[in-house]
Amino acid sequence: MDKIADKAADALVLLREKKPLVHHITNWVTISDCASITRSLGALPVMAHAEEEVEEMVGIAGALVLNIGTLTPTLVSSMIKAGRRANRNGTPVILDAVGVGATRLRTDSAKEILAEVKIRVIKGNSGEIATLAGARAEVRGVESISAEGDAMAHAKALAKSEGCTVVATGAEDIVTDGSKAFMVRNGHPRMGEVVGTGCMAASVIGAFSAIEPDGTLAACYAMIVYDIAGEIAAADAKGPGSMKQNLFDAIMTVGAEVIRKGARVDAK
Amino acid sequence: MDKIADKAADALVLLREKKPLVHHITNWVTISDCASITRSLGALPVMAHAEEEVEEMVGIAGALVLNIGTLTPTLVSSMIKAGRRANRNGTPVILDAVGVGATRLRTDSAKEILAEVKIRVIKGNSGEIATLAGARAEVRGVESISAEGDAMAHAKALAKSEGCTVVATGAEDIVTDGSKAFMVRNGHPRMGEVVGTGCMAASVIGAFSAIEPDGTLAACYAMIVYDIAGEIAAADAKGPGSMKQNLFDAIMTVGAEVIRKGARVDAK
Amino acid sequence: MDKIADKAADALVLLREKKPLVHHITNWVTISDCASITRSLGALPVMAHAEEEVEEMVGIAGALVLNIGTLTPTLVSSMIKAGRRANRNGTPVILDAVGVGATRLRTDSAKEILAEVKIRVIKGNSGEIATLAGARAEVRGVESISAEGDAMAHAKALAKSEGCTVVATGAEDIVTDGSKAFMVRNGHPRMGEVVGTGCMAASVIGAFSAIEPDGTLAACYAMIVYDIAGEIAAADAKGPGSMKQNLFDAIMTVGAEVIRKGARVDAK
Repeated sequence: MDKIADKAADALVLLREKKPLVHHITNWVTISDCASITRSLGALPVMAHAEEEVEEMVGIAGALVLNIGTLTPTLVSSMIKAGRRANRNGTPVILDAVGVGATRLRTDSAKEILAEVKIRVIKGNSGEIATLAGARAEVRGVESISAEGDAMAHAKALAKSEGCTVVATGAEDIVTDGSKAFMVRNGHPRMGEVVGTGCMAASVIGAFSAIEPDGTLAACYAMIVYDIAGEIAAADAKGPGSMKQNLFDAIMTVGAEVIRKGARVDAK
Repeated sequence: MDKIADKAADALVLLREKKPLVHHITNWVTISDCASITRSLGALPVMAHAEEEVEEMVGIAGALVLNIGTLTPTLVSSMIKAGRRANRNGTPVILDAVGVGATRLRTDSAKEILAEVKIRVIKGNSGEIATLAGARAEVRGVESISAEGDAMAHAKALAKSEGCTVVATGAEDIVTDGSKAFMVRNGHPRMGEVVGTGCMAASVIGAFSAIEPDGTLAACYAMIVYDIAGEIAAADAKGPGSMKQNLFDAIMTVGAEVIRKGARVDAK
Repeated sequence: MDKIADKAADALVLLREKKPLVHHITNWVTISDCASITRSLGALPVMAHAEEEVEEMVGIAGALVLNIGTLTPTLVSSMIKAGRRANRNGTPVILDAVGVGATRLRTDSAKEILAEVKIRVIKGNSGEIATLAGARAEVRGVESISAEGDAMAHAKALAKSEGCTVVATGAEDIVTDGSKAFMVRNGHPRMGEVVGTGCMAASVIGAFSAIEPDGTLAACYAMIVYDIAGEIAAADAKGPGSMKQNLFDAIMTVGAEVIRKGARVDAK
């Protein structure tokens, strides 16, 4: 797996050089965090949700991140409009399935987006991914409480049925295209204590997808870099406030060598 | 008042164990802060405002927090829908009356919510509470500038007329059910310098209301824990930026013993 | 230019004494940052966008800040409503032209606002100002990539054609009324790494405009104070996370003497 670590490090250097624009249609809770992590990583964020401009905005973007954390039908309609344009342009689309399983609106909207837009990477916690894979799961608000069956099996099944990459976040992050899979073992428990770390992961995946056409590799690089930044951030965090601030500092300053040496990834 | 301190400490332990889901329909300014304080306290936040999902979401929640800080008529309508469902389920509803008295829309919307939804705890600054109690007050935006009459009298009158608990925040926080009242003397002036500390107080009240059915006790525990976290946060804050970050750190790490020993509450 | 530094220092003292209310109709990404910088500076922020209350709210405000960062036609309509009322009351209106040049909706909306509302200060990055001045520019999302011609010439042309003050932010900030111009040479490169520093500048301009009727002087004071706070903040920032937090701390604590001695402004 040295290879993946080296490629992630190289991709980070390329990303910082290319500074791709990552267009987000996202929720109102973590919209600022998503913009900040994208900018801190070295890419350019833009948040634009009016149906009158989403197609034009995504037309100049390197990736599109859709996040249904505070969805409304109007917002979902803008997401689909932007997503279709992205598809026509070959621009990668990331779907963060926030709260799928908690309400019908969230589950149905995610499915509608998947039906209308070709998604390159679906990201969710284990409950959200299980729900999309057709399994029973308890999602309390935006938190995965429990899911029947095996997280890896759900992720692979969903990736296969949608023909895309699936990232199931957790203590270890699963990244799979349905057949091959990576377990990214980096990261720190403090990341789970901070509101927005899930959403920010999708932004990082979006940024890497803009420079790496293989969705599974892009997602893998993203999770490695993001999780290692989380480890650095946690080192002198005293709680979720300092943790979040440190995370922005760490992801801007982490160097390629640290990625190369620090990555802990297993192929499954 | 040792008893209240002990009970607050016990409630904090219980809250962290139960991790209740606190559903917010709130404003776009402090929505991230409210989610973060809820999560840092040990509960689970969810923000959901689409009329299509608010009833289902509140159905799995332990408390509902309504905050009219950036209200629109559509948002107020979702609040009422969610509030009525919460009432049917016996789920406590907290109303944060942000900016009541500043514009007719805010005053009228708060009154409409009070007419349509049984509120367990109304929270506001002294100007907002005075306005709801029918007194004259100047609320400049979301800041209380002045109010005629006595803050305690207004809080008690409003609590009596609405049959609920009222929290009037200030240098000392009033918590009253209309007859008995507590003065929570914890807290720190730096809390008033940070945008969002008022809104976050309502989130904390919501979380405690999910585990303590008596609204006045729940609000009292909440203000004690929140204000003591504020004291800890202020100890090495250099301004409002570090203060807010420290507050998230402090509320996650403050222990029951610190609450037990640090609470300064008087019955009035 | 000692005179400008002295006046900026005096204005800061006055601002903190007067605590003007700054009404924002702004975007969902940096709305919290804008509220925080306004409050940390010593003024009072309020965010209110419902068409039902914007006129009443601006009626009690000392300044109105319009920011089209996540605009919709509905939001622009509220901006125009509030702006016209502000005009009738003689209340200064600031326009932050976020993303103008990136999409037609942004460019057209900014022009519509300029046609309907008398703006006291237009603020933008060099690409946004160039676009409004009729030059060709590339604005990638909300980031200025390139613009033909000379930034000072565009700023002056726009100021002349709109009969207002123009602030073009950059490594050095241009403030001009179309004939005279100031270059504010304070600030720090770290400011450009933080999401929201552009938007927050407009909030600071709004606050100073509430106490200084000359738009060019107000904008100049604002940029001096804000940029010096940025310098202080950068001194022990480790990245964009700590930088933003430090900025709130610095702008609350920076004293008049530091402004008086630290201002670096050239008349052009």
